[in-house]
Amino acid sequence: MVEHSGTDVKFVNKYCPSSSSSSSASSSSSSSASSAREMKILATLRGSLSRKYPQKNGEVLSAQYGINLLLVGLALMLALAYQGPTVTEETVLAFLSTLMLMQLLWMICYVARLERKRNVPPERDADAATSWIRGGLTLLALLSLITDAFRVGNFVGYQECVSPVLGVYPVVHALHTVSQVHFLWFHVKDVVKRYETFERFGVIHAVFTNLLIWSNGVMTEAEHALNDHKRRLSAIGNFNFTFWEDQPSCNCTTSACSMFSSSLYYLCPFNIEYHIFVSVLLFVMWKNVGRTLDQRSNQKPASSLPLLTGSGDRPFLLLGPAFGLLALASAITVLVIYIIHVEESLEARHAAISMFYWFGIIILACMSIAGAVGLVIYRLEDWPMDTAPNPARTLDSKLLLGSSIGSWLVCWCSVIAVGGATNSPIYRWANLGYAILLVLEKCVQNLFVIESLYRRRREPEGHGPGLRATHNSILSPSQGNEKIFAVYDGIINHAYESPDKNCENEKHTYGRNKENMTHSHRPGMPETPNRQRQVLKNIAIFLFMCNISLWILPAFGCRPQFDNGLEEASFGFPIWSTVLNFALPMSLFYRMHSVAVLFEVFRKI
Amino acid sequence: MVEHSGTDVKFVNKYCPSSSSSSSASSSSSSSASSAREMKILATLRGSLSRKYPQKNGEVLSAQYGINLLLVGLALMLALAYQGPTVTEETVLAFLSTLMLMQLLWMICYVARLERKRNVPPERDADAATSWIRGGLTLLALLSLITDAFRVGNFVGYQECVSPVLGVYPVVHALHTVSQVHFLWFHVKDVVKRYETFERFGVIHAVFTNLLIWSNGVMTEAEHALNDHKRRLSAIGNFNFTFWEDQPSCNCTTSACSMFSSSLYYLCPFNIEYHIFVSVLLFVMWKNVGRTLDQRSNQKPASSLPLLTGSGDRPFLLLGPAFGLLALASAITVLVIYIIHVEESLEARHAAISMFYWFGIIILACMSIAGAVGLVIYRLEDWPMDTAPNPARTLDSKLLLGSSIGSWLVCWCSVIAVGGATNSPIYRWANLGYAILLVLEKCVQNLFVIESLYRRRREPEGHGPGLRATHNSILSPSQGNEKIFAVYDGIINHAYESPDKNCENEKHTYGRNKENMTHSHRPGMPETPNRQRQVLKNIAIFLFMCNISLWILPAFGCRPQFDNGLEEASFGFPIWSTVLNFALPMSLFYRMHSVAVLFEVFRKI
Repeated sequence: MVEHSGTDVKFVNKYCPSSSSSSSASSSSSSSASSAREMKILATLRGSLSRKYPQKNGEVLSAQYGINLLLVGLALMLALAYQGPTVTEETVLAFLSTLMLMQLLWMICYVARLERKRNVPPERDADAATSWIRGGLTLLALLSLITDAFRVGNFVGYQECVSPVLGVYPVVHALHTVSQVHFLWFHVKDVVKRYETFERFGVIHAVFTNLLIWSNGVMTEAEHALNDHKRRLSAIGNFNFTFWEDQPSCNCTTSACSMFSSSLYYLCPFNIEYHIFVSVLLFVMWKNVGRTLDQRSNQKPASSLPLLTGSGDRPFLLLGPAFGLLALASAITVLVIYIIHVEESLEARHAAISMFYWFGIIILACMSIAGAVGLVIYRLEDWPMDTAPNPARTLDSKLLLGSSIGSWLVCWCSVIAVGGATNSPIYRWANLGYAILLVLEKCVQNLFVIESLYRRRREPEGHGPGLRATHNSILSPSQGNEKIFAVYDGIINHAYESPDKNCENEKHTYGRNKENMTHSHRPGMPETPNRQRQVLKNIAIFLFMCNISLWILPAFGCRPQFDNGLEEASFGFPIWSTVLNFALPMSLFYRMHSVAVLFEVFRKI
Repeated sequence: MVEHSGTDVKFVNKYCPSSSSSSSASSSSSSSASSAREMKILATLRGSLSRKYPQKNGEVLSAQYGINLLLVGLALMLALAYQGPTVTEETVLAFLSTLMLMQLLWMICYVARLERKRNVPPERDADAATSWIRGGLTLLALLSLITDAFRVGNFVGYQECVSPVLGVYPVVHALHTVSQVHFLWFHVKDVVKRYETFERFGVIHAVFTNLLIWSNGVMTEAEHALNDHKRRLSAIGNFNFTFWEDQPSCNCTTSACSMFSSSLYYLCPFNIEYHIFVSVLLFVMWKNVGRTLDQRSNQKPASSLPLLTGSGDRPFLLLGPAFGLLALASAITVLVIYIIHVEESLEARHAAISMFYWFGIIILACMSIAGAVGLVIYRLEDWPMDTAPNPARTLDSKLLLGSSIGSWLVCWCSVIAVGGATNSPIYRWANLGYAILLVLEKCVQNLFVIESLYRRRREPEGHGPGLRATHNSILSPSQGNEKIFAVYDGIINHAYESPDKNCENEKHTYGRNKENMTHSHRPGMPETPNRQRQVLKNIAIFLFMCNISLWILPAFGCRPQFDNGLEEASFGFPIWSTVLNFALPMSLFYRMHSVAVLFEVFRKI
């Protein structure tokens, strides 16, 4: 890989004269011309392969590498899931450790190269990862490190009878976690412009390494859930399964082993979330490789708003947090009651499941109403849309929609199961209501979050330097005038966020901003936007805490979809457990991701 | 839904004066001002909800509708697959018929509304679906209609003992097919600008209705494959399964029933491909709703090249078609031999599987080499990239990459299975070679196809009106000069196809075209591009026919992944059959889609 960003112009200058001289030579002597042409072709080819690799191909090539990496890992895990003779847990862990070490090597190379060229710092994408997201990640990484410490402790206890890979893996993982968090803090915003093809491979390798560790975690979790399910069925005396717990064959030599393994059970969800979040951040970095940043859209917002008071005159941030805390407290109560009662008698079990569904119905109804109110407020006010290109935001919206699919599938399966059920336990219709409300709530929340993300950030009243700058720098007036009649009062934006229309957008911006300025500085209604803003802030914080609650419940073992038996009767255990093992990780990711995005929305409003 | 495209400007004009008058009234009397404000808010809300719904929200809302439609259908099919008491085949078919009738209704509404406004024809996206794609679809639709006729015949035979839904479904399907093909011929290129939100729902409904019928077909096919597999195992005496074939309980009253059901077996793949293709075309139409077309990029190419002679002076289109026909003929031979021998003794079975793998290795190696040669030629010549926005092309690339995932997963599973196999049948290492070559071939072919799609269409030599028009219409000279030093000789294009960079691209175009003109009209090498072009055309037609061959093999029952037993030993039957049922439909779609795209590439080169 040869550096190319500095040498391109030189290359063009060198290349053109030589080609014209070879063509003039061809008229004088045909043999020397043909050899010259061959040499030229060779030179072109060499030049092409070393430095002129088109961006699109680099993207496709590295994407294909990443996908295949993921698929190799998935194939290994599938073989492990069968517990056949081919693949053991050691193989998978060794594979993951190798990938992590490779990533480590790449990160060291990247940082070293950057250090060498310290006088030319890379451009940075201001939207990529806000500092509080990185802060949250650091917290998750700390919990991840504790997990690693416990794993090492567990290994020391069973040292005699388990493979050394089980001891090496957590050490490599800890090393990987520390250096990755360091890398994310200082380099995730970088827009790579040198050695593009190579860095693209490095970044995509990092993305898919984290995704694979995530998949591995999810598989372990699915195993936990299945074992829980079987234990509960045994506890109420319905079945008598043999357990396939991952217990080594020798006795623990230290006294802390049981503490370690039960703690690992509760720490696992954090580790899983850490890896999926890292891969999302790195994916944005991958999309940014070779990107030409738009100076205007890359400006930091002028003022950073104080967090819990709001910057307006009336800090009315009470109802949202209050109801949110209530939801959180009730969720934890429900979780504890559920886990205790679901392993008792059949009646207690049914009561626990019923309680879960009713709690779900109430919280989901509140969330749907809150989201709907937010949407109505957006319809009422005519604040313009932000159409500047922003890979992080596009990815956020797509991830929200994509990760909803899992729990929507579960919901529709529940609806069908309830509709066709032959027996009728007390929670039958509560289950139906819960499923339908869950579909509705995710639809409304997605709409609310995506609309919030695409709203232009509010400037402090009275000055809008960003807007005026846009008008001056982007457009000649004649171009703006052509489009002005296609633009209305800030809510309709026919070109907003379709990737094919950015050029149109630039032209529209002029008209929209002009309209918007006349509106927002209209005399006689200064307090309304502020009140609306307070309501929106309350809604965002309420949804934020509700999503935390709805993450906690399934993450720590409250999974009535496994326990209620209705769906299992309609779909059979193999199909239903496959559906759940596919859908639950997506659903957990959806809640965590909503939490992150809603916090961003809260700060932005 | 109220029409809005014509009334927007009026609305702005009406809205702004009223708001300024209400704010002036507020200074004179506070009570009348507040009531006026309330009325204004109500009016805004009413206006917002009826006509000012932002495009992004319309997109998200309709996407959510479509996804949930798909998930309801999938949930029904999962319940059907379990053969539980909840859902029968009639339920699923009734559901699909309802969806088709709804789509029919929407298409009638759409066409009727268009007829009423015949004086204002909608804009059309020239890239959306070329006439030969629609021609191919019509062919598939005809085969689909024959399928429907056979289904009706089958129903008549078993009339006494099967549900009437089985008779209604094919009639509705035939009606749906005829009107859908009519709709696609005349309206799939339309860029909808009126009643946007409503039409968006209509189009997405059509997309997901077709996807659901596709899923249903795929499920039937998976059942066929499973029954085949079981029959073959019984035939060589390994197992003794009870069949779950879909036979009615009474005897057929006509003599043609067995003919009908065996023909249905062979017609099913065409029906499946028809529906997935229709949903892809309609998805492009959905992406086009409300799109602002770029006049320049929407021009039809000036000259349509004659098909099989090439427009150059030396029509050397011989090697590609010849080798392609050879591949096709051998594939059909292999198919016949395989199907006959795989049900014979264990030795014949092993020989058949071995033959399949060796045939696969040869054809995949040739395809990889051809694709690699194509890529080298692209590196050698410096033809510029086409960066104009084009949803159809973006979708094509994403579909190719996405649908590769299925067979890549199968390949990596095979690699792991071969690596860890305990027994060693004669085809063990051939299977390994086949798997690795398949991964390689898809990578190379994807790169070749995507690079071909993003190449600028060649103009006949000596005149380049499109290029010159670009230069004149898009840029003022000062803007072009700013960027000219960032652009080299046509191959590097740092801004190509990342959705965020279209504006940059417009500026780059000027520099690139200028460079390109100097290169392509350089004296002394007029024949080289033409020879390269012939090679590229040969490669495209060769890959085209190879992909047809590789579609035929699995579509008509040549599926050694089910029969070879290696992977089943490593992954277990449940996991492995799930993987195959997920991967094989994707792989079939990949081949068909490659065929369509390669034909386009062939015409374009």
